[in-house]
Amino acid sequence: MLYFENDYDRGCHPRVMKKLCDTNLIPAAGYGDDEFSQRARGYIRKACNAPAADVFFLSGGTQTNAVAIGGLLRPWEGVYAADTGHIGLHEAGAVEFTGHKVMSLPQRQGKIDARQLRARLEGFYADPNHEHMVFPGMVYISHPTEYGTLYSLQELEEISDICKSFNISLFLDGARLAYALAAETDVTLPDLARLCDVFYIGGTKCGALCGEALVFPKGAPERFLTVIKQRGALMAKGRLIGAQFEALFEDGLYFQTGRSAVALALRLKDELTARGIALLVDSPTNQQFPILDNGLLEKLSEKVKYSFWEPYDERRTVVRLATSWATGPEDVDGLAKILDKPGD
Amino acid sequence: MLYFENDYDRGCHPRVMKKLCDTNLIPAAGYGDDEFSQRARGYIRKACNAPAADVFFLSGGTQTNAVAIGGLLRPWEGVYAADTGHIGLHEAGAVEFTGHKVMSLPQRQGKIDARQLRARLEGFYADPNHEHMVFPGMVYISHPTEYGTLYSLQELEEISDICKSFNISLFLDGARLAYALAAETDVTLPDLARLCDVFYIGGTKCGALCGEALVFPKGAPERFLTVIKQRGALMAKGRLIGAQFEALFEDGLYFQTGRSAVALALRLKDELTARGIALLVDSPTNQQFPILDNGLLEKLSEKVKYSFWEPYDERRTVVRLATSWATGPEDVDGLAKILDKPGD
Amino acid sequence: MLYFENDYDRGCHPRVMKKLCDTNLIPAAGYGDDEFSQRARGYIRKACNAPAADVFFLSGGTQTNAVAIGGLLRPWEGVYAADTGHIGLHEAGAVEFTGHKVMSLPQRQGKIDARQLRARLEGFYADPNHEHMVFPGMVYISHPTEYGTLYSLQELEEISDICKSFNISLFLDGARLAYALAAETDVTLPDLARLCDVFYIGGTKCGALCGEALVFPKGAPERFLTVIKQRGALMAKGRLIGAQFEALFEDGLYFQTGRSAVALALRLKDELTARGIALLVDSPTNQQFPILDNGLLEKLSEKVKYSFWEPYDERRTVVRLATSWATGPEDVDGLAKILDKPGD
Amino acid sequence: MLYFENDYDRGCHPRVMKKLCDTNLIPAAGYGDDEFSQRARGYIRKACNAPAADVFFLSGGTQTNAVAIGGLLRPWEGVYAADTGHIGLHEAGAVEFTGHKVMSLPQRQGKIDARQLRARLEGFYADPNHEHMVFPGMVYISHPTEYGTLYSLQELEEISDICKSFNISLFLDGARLAYALAAETDVTLPDLARLCDVFYIGGTKCGALCGEALVFPKGAPERFLTVIKQRGALMAKGRLIGAQFEALFEDGLYFQTGRSAVALALRLKDELTARGIALLVDSPTNQQFPILDNGLLEKLSEKVKYSFWEPYDERRTVVRLATSWATGPEDVDGLAKILDKPGD
Repeated sequence: MLYFENDYDRGCHPRVMKKLCDTNLIPAAGYGDDEFSQRARGYIRKACNAPAADVFFLSGGTQTNAVAIGGLLRPWEGVYAADTGHIGLHEAGAVEFTGHKVMSLPQRQGKIDARQLRARLEGFYADPNHEHMVFPGMVYISHPTEYGTLYSLQELEEISDICKSFNISLFLDGARLAYALAAETDVTLPDLARLCDVFYIGGTKCGALCGEALVFPKGAPERFLTVIKQRGALMAKGRLIGAQFEALFEDGLYFQTGRSAVALALRLKDELTARGIALLVDSPTNQQFPILDNGLLEKLSEKVKYSFWEPYDERRTVVRLATSWATGPEDVDGLAKILDKPGD
Repeated sequence: MLYFENDYDRGCHPRVMKKLCDTNLIPAAGYGDDEFSQRARGYIRKACNAPAADVFFLSGGTQTNAVAIGGLLRPWEGVYAADTGHIGLHEAGAVEFTGHKVMSLPQRQGKIDARQLRARLEGFYADPNHEHMVFPGMVYISHPTEYGTLYSLQELEEISDICKSFNISLFLDGARLAYALAAETDVTLPDLARLCDVFYIGGTKCGALCGEALVFPKGAPERFLTVIKQRGALMAKGRLIGAQFEALFEDGLYFQTGRSAVALALRLKDELTARGIALLVDSPTNQQFPILDNGLLEKLSEKVKYSFWEPYDERRTVVRLATSWATGPEDVDGLAKILDKPGD
Repeated sequence: MLYFENDYDRGCHPRVMKKLCDTNLIPAAGYGDDEFSQRARGYIRKACNAPAADVFFLSGGTQTNAVAIGGLLRPWEGVYAADTGHIGLHEAGAVEFTGHKVMSLPQRQGKIDARQLRARLEGFYADPNHEHMVFPGMVYISHPTEYGTLYSLQELEEISDICKSFNISLFLDGARLAYALAAETDVTLPDLARLCDVFYIGGTKCGALCGEALVFPKGAPERFLTVIKQRGALMAKGRLIGAQFEALFEDGLYFQTGRSAVALALRLKDELTARGIALLVDSPTNQQFPILDNGLLEKLSEKVKYSFWEPYDERRTVVRLATSWATGPEDVDGLAKILDKPGD
Repeated sequence: MLYFENDYDRGCHPRVMKKLCDTNLIPAAGYGDDEFSQRARGYIRKACNAPAADVFFLSGGTQTNAVAIGGLLRPWEGVYAADTGHIGLHEAGAVEFTGHKVMSLPQRQGKIDARQLRARLEGFYADPNHEHMVFPGMVYISHPTEYGTLYSLQELEEISDICKSFNISLFLDGARLAYALAAETDVTLPDLARLCDVFYIGGTKCGALCGEALVFPKGAPERFLTVIKQRGALMAKGRLIGAQFEALFEDGLYFQTGRSAVALALRLKDELTARGIALLVDSPTNQQFPILDNGLLEKLSEKVKYSFWEPYDERRTVVRLATSWATGPEDVDGLAKILDKPGD
């Protein structure tokens, strides 16, 4: 069986596991005040070129989104997100559970458009009834998006400028950030730290057993540790995530695994298009979305793990194929062979 | 000045005020257990042909929506509403504040479509990831809609059937129900009681000083009084709303004021169209939405109170003109004259 | 039957009703922007000697408490209240519903003690684990308390000083404020405006049909109108409450009805003690808490409406007798006669 | 340095780590549907003698408490807990954040008393105003308590009976359950499964890197997985916790580490009392609370890690000493020596 179902089907990168084993018996303070977390924060600040950044380690993406959004918004505010944004669709209403509305923006291949954002914000304040409406308090974007696509530096700068001019926060969901940073892109980690008010560096889907690093480049909001505790997101053994991020950032492992996965995803993309298989979007990152004949799909399913994405038409289906640190060239070669002779 | 800005710019219908005066010095129990509320409940049960109905009196529309929706939904559920639904746009996130998501459905002239609703529900359960999504728990419709339009009996029956087959609640926001019942329609109050799980009979916009009657035709959910109290919606002097609904329902005042306002609104509509003024929607109720030249509008504004609705194009604007119990034939005649000679 | 059950069993003071009738047909803006509310705000600012005060009219006490507390506290904060505080016991968890903890302080006759408050606050910050605890963000006091008792000016100043020195808000629940101001006291309305960050002037229990005036002496928090809307507490016909407060404050009616009710309550107290009936607390306001033999109580119940308060011992019960604007000297005389010959 | 500060200052038990390493590269389904979690559930069901139990793996104690309590209570309900209960004091208002009140019960050495519980419940329903109050919906107990003490089987049965007779849930917080089960006690895991509606088997403080097993002996409430997701508590790599619980329960490691830690704690207790050091409570589990002279404490602090608990009097302080899987006999011997010659 070949595994392309997602980027979280294995445990963690062996070097992450080694760090956990090596540090296991060292006594350490609880609740994120341990030496591993402290060092990991230092590495992340440096990688972000953000020496004043506050960094918190949370255990998963939905949790991180809900804590960051619910913790930053004021009671009368909501968050804008693309129609396809993870917070609006696939987090079971976690943001609404904190009392805040997710307000949909139109999207193209998972991305919002700066001009549409500006028009929406201007329209809001122009509406004579806006005091009876949810105030915009934040813009949420995912990078890569749920479709694997990326914002360009110019796009991010435009969105960031709009947020600044309307005095609202920009939050970037980097659940798969390793793959964004490793793709062909002009966006760097320091760019994100410069342009976002808060963002997270995903661990769970980028080689860790669990954990996301929530970064406030200009410093955390007041009493944020207590907010994390209140939302059930403060781990007693904060070292578990801290040590993993130390492993990921102390010598570039995070970037290296990103590059490996993206390179294999692009090879996979080539193999698909070379065989005349169309792709739903032109993704430069570790997720690819081929449109497959249902007959072929049925045959594949015995040999390849993939994710159902959505029906395309009566005879075709979009699936997601994802690479990760655990994917090897032999997996892509294997898939290519199966595509050539699916009936074997 | 002529007043067409809304249907809540005066106090209450004189007969409602008379009831308040007549009963003012009678001692009564608090929190809705008074004789006036009790009698009003009886009249409403009878008008709804729903002898087992539980009826609660709340003070306003947003409150009633939030208490009913937030009180009925279970934690993992959200509510479907038209894009243009009041709960999604103009209640400052009151439903989200209770922890529940408002999920948008496409609309036409303020109405949702039964087939689209069914497709959405089927799509939800067909989605292999639906356990990570907000479950549909309720459908919210407004009747009249925010555009003054009405559902037909067949449309309501189809929507109700779909709700039943998916085991979710149907909630009808009747903020302006008097005008729906008085319009040319095949929908009666007993129909609503038969087809909805819960609905409210609006008072504030239909002749009362304040108050909405929330009706559970088959009986209230458990401990609903405590939920009302918890949401800050239980009035110590419940008699204030009870007595008003007694006045509105003891001898048909609610229906009579509805008929008067609708008749005048239709005359107004005729006057508008007779003068070549287009309407945004074909509303059969007390709200009309003419599309006016901006020049005309400016002249009108000195003599007529109206509500800005939305820009139509660069030189025209949609406004809302509303009638109520306080509107007289002379108001419509006056407006017609002004339209003939706006510059006078 | 004599009515001492509570201070909200009748409609409103006749002069309040007259104002509603006189203004009923005057067109007015919605949502609190009407002329009556504007004038009432002016009268209240003047009575409070607080020209910069923002004043909002809400419909009831639980609602006002929940909106003020939930609207002011930040996510990581809770509110201190006496064990016996209304918000902690008799509001069905309305504050907790907004996500905030009510933290109990010991009380004596319904009042908290400044030294105990200071000790609690110092203890909180001295606790090495306080970042894992709910931060104190506000102190809630009721005045009169639930036992009819009053804070002295010195007590209020001490509590206010402590709040200032710990940078937390002081909120005063004035559901029955008319009776506090009319009692023998050195506390005036300007004192409250000077010492509190926010307080409310109760209407429902002091002569209005409904309504409480929430006063922020130094100005309201950001976007508070939207918060009120979001919590379902913004009335479309804000005039209903505005006009009532205009009647209560334009020429001193609020103070006058307070004085009348308190005077009768003190006469009632004298009649009780003259007959050897002990009182649970020494209340200087409109609520009195006699401890009655159960046998006597049973006889009384046919002729007098009272509120059960709590069992005292096996053979005695504490009840509450309340006066209001609707109480006359003949009611107190009548009760005295019944006490003399309960078996008649 | 000797480490007695807490039971979570090291990583995980070496056999737990071995399991993580051994299974690291095995592909597995996400969100708790992996083979490790499935097997762990089977072991837990067996250990609980509860074949119909539903078991969910969450990442920490505060999270588990908030999800279980907030997920089970209905909107009008709150939870009773001892004054000293973790949910009431040290979870930053996590339960209140879900909208529910934590209602204090008196405690003795961290334990609630069945008679006091019954009296409180009877008092609630006897109160004529109880519809305006938070309804009791659950009883929360911790076992061991925050003071290391244990309920006897009879005490648990009495509490359970009361809960059943009042139709409310019994929830047991087993953050340190390994030490409860290993102590001298007549309470077994099957007893807990029989007597509780829901409880959790703590991992974080009992040898795991993270993770708590939430057990519903009679089956989970509806859509609980979605509730877990909504609260940000569903891990993508559920295997992380599943595999650890597999290691802890496949051959009795959980019980074995509990016994080791308790045996050492009792030796430690003996060493303390043998030296005339009083204990705050008589704890039979892994936490001991000696009352130490401040002078001695200062000397100790250079050689021994402990937790400050509370001041005892002007010259003495209560500290907590905790053992765990990582404590060895040499640690206790070392501490004994230091106590003999603290100045060395």
